[in-house]
Amino acid sequence: MTVDDLVRNPGAWLAAGDLPAVVVSSRVRLARNLAGVAFPGWAGEDESVRIEQGLRDVLQRLPSLSPGFRVDMVSASAIDRDFLRERHLISNELAQKTKGSGLVLREDETLSVMVNEEDHLRLQAMRPGMDLTNLWAAMDALDNEIEDQVRYAYTPDLGYLTACPSNVGTGLRASVMVHVPGLRLTNEIEPIIRGLTKIGLAVRGLQGEGTEASGNMFQISNQTTLGESEGAIVERLVQIVNEVAAHEQNARLRLLEQREGQVRDCVGRAYGVLSQARVLTSHEALDYLSGLRLGIELGMIKGLGMGDVNRLVVYTQPGHLQKVAGRTIDPDERDEVRAGIVRERVRQATVVED
Amino acid sequence: MTVDDLVRNPGAWLAAGDLPAVVVSSRVRLARNLAGVAFPGWAGEDESVRIEQGLRDVLQRLPSLSPGFRVDMVSASAIDRDFLRERHLISNELAQKTKGSGLVLREDETLSVMVNEEDHLRLQAMRPGMDLTNLWAAMDALDNEIEDQVRYAYTPDLGYLTACPSNVGTGLRASVMVHVPGLRLTNEIEPIIRGLTKIGLAVRGLQGEGTEASGNMFQISNQTTLGESEGAIVERLVQIVNEVAAHEQNARLRLLEQREGQVRDCVGRAYGVLSQARVLTSHEALDYLSGLRLGIELGMIKGLGMGDVNRLVVYTQPGHLQKVAGRTIDPDERDEVRAGIVRERVRQATVVED
Repeated sequence: MTVDDLVRNPGAWLAAGDLPAVVVSSRVRLARNLAGVAFPGWAGEDESVRIEQGLRDVLQRLPSLSPGFRVDMVSASAIDRDFLRERHLISNELAQKTKGSGLVLREDETLSVMVNEEDHLRLQAMRPGMDLTNLWAAMDALDNEIEDQVRYAYTPDLGYLTACPSNVGTGLRASVMVHVPGLRLTNEIEPIIRGLTKIGLAVRGLQGEGTEASGNMFQISNQTTLGESEGAIVERLVQIVNEVAAHEQNARLRLLEQREGQVRDCVGRAYGVLSQARVLTSHEALDYLSGLRLGIELGMIKGLGMGDVNRLVVYTQPGHLQKVAGRTIDPDERDEVRAGIVRERVRQATVVED
Repeated sequence: MTVDDLVRNPGAWLAAGDLPAVVVSSRVRLARNLAGVAFPGWAGEDESVRIEQGLRDVLQRLPSLSPGFRVDMVSASAIDRDFLRERHLISNELAQKTKGSGLVLREDETLSVMVNEEDHLRLQAMRPGMDLTNLWAAMDALDNEIEDQVRYAYTPDLGYLTACPSNVGTGLRASVMVHVPGLRLTNEIEPIIRGLTKIGLAVRGLQGEGTEASGNMFQISNQTTLGESEGAIVERLVQIVNEVAAHEQNARLRLLEQREGQVRDCVGRAYGVLSQARVLTSHEALDYLSGLRLGIELGMIKGLGMGDVNRLVVYTQPGHLQKVAGRTIDPDERDEVRAGIVRERVRQATVVED
């Protein structure tokens, strides 16, 4: 299998989670390094290449990553890099690396490992909906399989050692993508983000670190990796995200009671524009797909599933558009191609009249 | 007949003009005053009432205004005033008057006379499309019928005398409403407005003096009333407006050749939003109705006529909404009622696929 096959097979994490789907998807990553060799940022090119070759061989034999394949960053084109980033398989940092860096992944994309990103190993797991506990179990199994083959940089008092001190300890970052249009319509997003930040959680946009929120979607993740067990970190995040989801559900109920017209307007306009637009920017697509998502959850849109929307969110991004077309497309034409993809799919849906 | 009957019968000027309908409607008005009595602004209440009673009796017997009826400003409610203003039957100034002011009109609204607005008599004629020459003929006939019954304030060297010096002479203002979405999309509106102003024409928004342009519609009218005959004024305006219309047609052709996607996007979004929105401000309605109008003219929208759009433009304004509902409606609810009226009508249309 190659990157090109991923184009035709949307990752398993793009399926629909349970409804109501305030939590769109869950992710867990672990940062790990090998004992006795320099961190990637300090290793020379030859050393990096040697480390990557060794790790790649180990990773491709692991049961957790089978059936799987590898991508090396030397041969990945610019469009491939965008594609893999949009697919949440590689980070912005790995997308800029070449020789001595790569990715090994399961074909269904639920588990993957970036090699020589900031750390020697970045283990990643993704699933649709709120599924952090199962994800952590799968991740823990992968981590044990690797640890049977290599010696990790680890000290009993600090835990796992990492290139950046902020990851030392568990090396764990658990995150969920939430969709909160209700909190946006009731103007409650800002105080909730402030609250989450205050209790030590990070809140980021759709594309991770340094990106703006769009489409009413946010990533919520733990900041601290030291002084708590992996289980405790995950459990705490689950608890808090459930609270955010409850707030969102509550906002939606209040909106339906007090301002149903406004909710139907938001859903109807999303359908109206997405089914008719001929030129659609990436940002607009995300915003209106949020309205469509809300409509599906509230039973106001029929003929379109949550998984369809998840896939549209990813497949309308520049790397995906170009990968599907099999050619470079300039930004103006991308907006037309994007509108065409969205229009075709959204027209199969209908607005349910009240 | 009363104002309430006008609610059910859209004025004849709201019908469709010839296609392509760059010129939506044409209007002509004449300012006239009686000799030997004070202008309305200088007359006392008793004198105004006496003048109005006299003129009302004269006007209601004229062939040009039959069948017709009168509206007096004492008994007109606030909603009636808004309604008549939106219908272009009374001016902002008359809408603020009470005792001693009124309106006499033909039932089909093509000819009407405001009594004791700024001048004793303001004769008005409106028709759909570009029809200034015929309008001027009808207006001239009405003017002669009145002049057979009363003595106008007139001097051979100045012409007709008026309350404001800017109307002295012919007392004529001829204007056309143009719809120029092509010039907007090609960013040519501003230079054209500057050009029109430079050659002595006035350019105003949909609701006349002091209003902003919206829905890509502008009123173009003559500024000067002195030193030119009525026929020459009308002929010159016709000539210039035909040039503006040619520019607009040209812009549309270029757009279809070079940026067809953008044109289809504008039309499609207009249809999408208007057929689905549940909350629609007056300004938004005008903007999107402009897109729909363009779509009808370019054959991209079927099942909706230009007259339907003309009527929607007027019937979605606050006075009309409330008059149709027969009750006062607060602004928030108006946006919902407006969306409902538009949705119902626009859903009967379809977008023609390329």
